[in-house]
Amino acid sequence: MDKALYDVVSSKTIKASRFEIVEDKLKIDGRDAKYSFVKIRPGICVIVETPDGFVLLKEYRYPIKSWTYEFTAGCIDEGESPEEAARREIQEETGYIADEIICLGDFYPSFGPTDEKITLFCANCNERTETKKEYTEFITHELVSGERIEELIMSGEFKHGAGLAAWLKYRLYRQRMADRPY
Amino acid sequence: MDKALYDVVSSKTIKASRFEIVEDKLKIDGRDAKYSFVKIRPGICVIVETPDGFVLLKEYRYPIKSWTYEFTAGCIDEGESPEEAARREIQEETGYIADEIICLGDFYPSFGPTDEKITLFCANCNERTETKKEYTEFITHELVSGERIEELIMSGEFKHGAGLAAWLKYRLYRQRMADRPY
Repeated sequence: MDKALYDVVSSKTIKASRFEIVEDKLKIDGRDAKYSFVKIRPGICVIVETPDGFVLLKEYRYPIKSWTYEFTAGCIDEGESPEEAARREIQEETGYIADEIICLGDFYPSFGPTDEKITLFCANCNERTETKKEYTEFITHELVSGERIEELIMSGEFKHGAGLAAWLKYRLYRQRMADRPY
Repeated sequence: MDKALYDVVSSKTIKASRFEIVEDKLKIDGRDAKYSFVKIRPGICVIVETPDGFVLLKEYRYPIKSWTYEFTAGCIDEGESPEEAARREIQEETGYIADEIICLGDFYPSFGPTDEKITLFCANCNERTETKKEYTEFITHELVSGERIEELIMSGEFKHGAGLAAWLKYRLYRQRMADRPY
């Protein structure tokens, strides 16, 4: 499984709006093939827990023309670690200051068409300051119980990919901490 | 929350390799803004359960240059329903024939940069025929227990976004069927 699967014959990068598309020509067992994918900046998603519940965001998402329930998420800025990005996004989007923050690992939202990688966290927050939103961002938030989040997941109202991955990892992490069986 | 958030001043679609990028100019409260996103064909992901365990795939994914654990997944072809796509992909990728198939809802893998939408399923399979793979596809599979899948998720070895979303929904669905509490 570790031998080279193909030879890269040529590689080009196409700029289109804010995106870069990589288009590679390959040889697989002597036959021509090509693969193209969209480069997407790595990001984070973090489940924010406060003494009064989990922070559930509602945000308008332009590509799907809908308001969506989601957890705090965003891109990792140049020079930032994933944890630094998570702490920054928590403050910008919710106003909370992260106290303890735990990394739940990373995953790929869609490794067929893109190379996007998201690192997942959960954070405990007590203190709160101001949010910092752009005028192009439409975000509100509420504090809810774990039961409410799972109701929204089961009813199909919570459709945030990174949020679903984070919730699964968080749930398994908590289960392991409590030493509960599968 | 339902009033128009912006006016679309102009919209253009840029073709780049196999992708289409939508670039829209907007007015938000009289101020200029723009948003671009990648159009991605809708897909499915399905958890395949057989009498001998869950079907766990290992596939080479070019954008991230890695072998990845994943569940059966793929694009919905023109004219297909999500369920038809799921049944086709199960047969093509694993060789199994789906018997009962249950829809677990849909979600968006990454609604910041793309409009991709994935519909999730779980399927029971007994019969098996031949797989149908392209020469550009490198896929193997094994049958594993639910405990093994959760070990791979917790260890960080299972990084498939749609697979994580499917597993969470499947787990909650099974829990609801068993009437177990949160």
